[in-house]
Amino acid sequence: MRRDHPTIALLSDFGLTDWYVASMKAVIARGNPAARIIDISHQIEPGNVHAGAFVLSQCYDDFPKGTVFVCVVDPGVGGPRKPIILYTGDYTFVAPDNGILSLLKPCMRRAFEIDVASLDPTLKRSYTFHGRDVFAPVAALLSNGVRPLELGTPVDAIAHLGFEFTVVKHLPQGGQFIYFDHFGNAISNLQLSRSGPFPGLLALENGPLVPFRRSYSEAPENEPVAYVGSGGFVELAINRGSARTALRLEEENAFTVQL
Amino acid sequence: MRRDHPTIALLSDFGLTDWYVASMKAVIARGNPAARIIDISHQIEPGNVHAGAFVLSQCYDDFPKGTVFVCVVDPGVGGPRKPIILYTGDYTFVAPDNGILSLLKPCMRRAFEIDVASLDPTLKRSYTFHGRDVFAPVAALLSNGVRPLELGTPVDAIAHLGFEFTVVKHLPQGGQFIYFDHFGNAISNLQLSRSGPFPGLLALENGPLVPFRRSYSEAPENEPVAYVGSGGFVELAINRGSARTALRLEEENAFTVQL
Amino acid sequence: MRRDHPTIALLSDFGLTDWYVASMKAVIARGNPAARIIDISHQIEPGNVHAGAFVLSQCYDDFPKGTVFVCVVDPGVGGPRKPIILYTGDYTFVAPDNGILSLLKPCMRRAFEIDVASLDPTLKRSYTFHGRDVFAPVAALLSNGVRPLELGTPVDAIAHLGFEFTVVKHLPQGGQFIYFDHFGNAISNLQLSRSGPFPGLLALENGPLVPFRRSYSEAPENEPVAYVGSGGFVELAINRGSARTALRLEEENAFTVQL
Repeated sequence: MRRDHPTIALLSDFGLTDWYVASMKAVIARGNPAARIIDISHQIEPGNVHAGAFVLSQCYDDFPKGTVFVCVVDPGVGGPRKPIILYTGDYTFVAPDNGILSLLKPCMRRAFEIDVASLDPTLKRSYTFHGRDVFAPVAALLSNGVRPLELGTPVDAIAHLGFEFTVVKHLPQGGQFIYFDHFGNAISNLQLSRSGPFPGLLALENGPLVPFRRSYSEAPENEPVAYVGSGGFVELAINRGSARTALRLEEENAFTVQL
Repeated sequence: MRRDHPTIALLSDFGLTDWYVASMKAVIARGNPAARIIDISHQIEPGNVHAGAFVLSQCYDDFPKGTVFVCVVDPGVGGPRKPIILYTGDYTFVAPDNGILSLLKPCMRRAFEIDVASLDPTLKRSYTFHGRDVFAPVAALLSNGVRPLELGTPVDAIAHLGFEFTVVKHLPQGGQFIYFDHFGNAISNLQLSRSGPFPGLLALENGPLVPFRRSYSEAPENEPVAYVGSGGFVELAINRGSARTALRLEEENAFTVQL
Repeated sequence: MRRDHPTIALLSDFGLTDWYVASMKAVIARGNPAARIIDISHQIEPGNVHAGAFVLSQCYDDFPKGTVFVCVVDPGVGGPRKPIILYTGDYTFVAPDNGILSLLKPCMRRAFEIDVASLDPTLKRSYTFHGRDVFAPVAALLSNGVRPLELGTPVDAIAHLGFEFTVVKHLPQGGQFIYFDHFGNAISNLQLSRSGPFPGLLALENGPLVPFRRSYSEAPENEPVAYVGSGGFVELAINRGSARTALRLEEENAFTVQL
């Protein structure tokens, strides 16, 4: 399973100011000099596992088959949460078992608890930086073709966040905002399916009725617009502005989509 | 034209918090596993095509010949603006046709409108994320040696911003600030040429007379200083401070350079 | 000494919004197409050489042997400070001689002043961007196996910051905070050694007595906790919060560790 251009993708809440991301990349470069590292994001809000899980869910299947993902939003580092490997056939994920892997699309899953004691004893060890000391070296090994079973013990279940997306099957359908992006676009928990109904209006709770369009650029400037975003979710934006700011939206704000 | 180390450079206003940049890189990694990706910036002010065009103009010719540039500051995504390829002989650019490519240095130019319908039908499709769905896959193809004519139809002209730099040919010469960098240095629209006159003073409108030096480090600490920046433009800085903040500068603020 | 996967690590205060980092990477890609570039950080506070030196000290030895480091926090660019190469046997550093290399662990050191006049005359030249014009091309040459002596002249000593870490040999021991990370964790100048005493409490000047634990996750939520961080230094955190904000900590704030 060794590949010519193994890809390792990194997701964390480490920020880009300190050396934490660099240490992870350096350990990976030591462990697999041929690995190509791609950053997903390191600016997940500190400790926000939900945001990390959502960001991962929106992009992991854009990556080449065989990619190893290292996902370290880990407020419980040094505590009892397990370090795990999740193998789905197409991809392998390395992460703390805190729910960050629970928004992947339905797929075969085999989970393993990493046997930390069996890792290379020359690695640095700490109680607060398992990204460098556990997850990065394990990702390098996996990208070299080492199999999960050689690095850990099978476990039956992994942690979940108690959150699921809602597929729109009838209208009206209530939803809520779960993520705001860099542009201030509000992304909701409602997924539209090809076979389901397509809404015409989004009614904000205590707010305006917003028409659906194909893209924000089809709305007049500075006008709110609803649309199906690039991940298939109902989104709300302001053409050339920030919906989050202009409409004072917050996470979990409710709305209804209707005909 | 296939190369050993094809370089793809990315410029966007996507920010680094969400997964948008990662999705583009993932699609490129799928399309050309050997491509080396270099970020120019993903922190262009949202929708600020002028800033994107300026940033691109300051660095593209530092890249290896053959580099493919993906430039996605695209407030009109999903609207009528064309997705284009611009080939200059040395470089190839992939971008929305909104002026972001209009500050390149004088060069041969051949432009093509991308034929989106002919792209791989297994790619994701959306109305709001052509970076992932159109520009990244086209860049991967180009970096694999596919020729622009195989991906689109020649077009006669591309969009321009109605803005040009001014080469200083005599003094005094009026100018204005067009870009502020991370340090608060103010970069102007005035270019100095080797054969032209070299100014001794910069006179801010309603502000102090600032002497020219070779570098800000030659000025006393916290003193304003004018100099020729690394891109050949007249700049204004404060040694060990921010000229933008200290002098309350804004874009389009006017000044005169004189002997 | 040419390597299959030469690594070049970059550290600067250039930020990620402008094109400065991209220009450095582009010049490296031209000089050594096979080099793998890893960012340490580009968000060192502008001109803060101390912070740059600390960040470098925390991660350089995670990198593969042979890595070339380019460290450009350079408020004196264009002034009399020398551009230097520092070779330690395991690693090579390229930087302005302003103290940024002075927190490396004890090691063999050979320093060289770069002979700028001997560099490729086709490179861009400026007084304000030696990252692009001097340090990046020199790093590319070094990563290609060119020896420091071919690029400069030996010098006897390099600049130091007049700052050293303190190894805890007895308790109580006074210390101070020297760096705050992205999470608001406060990192101090006190290093714990395996053979030395292990403290039980951290007493903030005019503040609470904070117990030591193995990791912040072992403290109750929102409670302050002292621990030995991943770099071996005494740190102070708030579990799931920012110690810097909650305890209003500033650099050089004093504390004592005790039994």
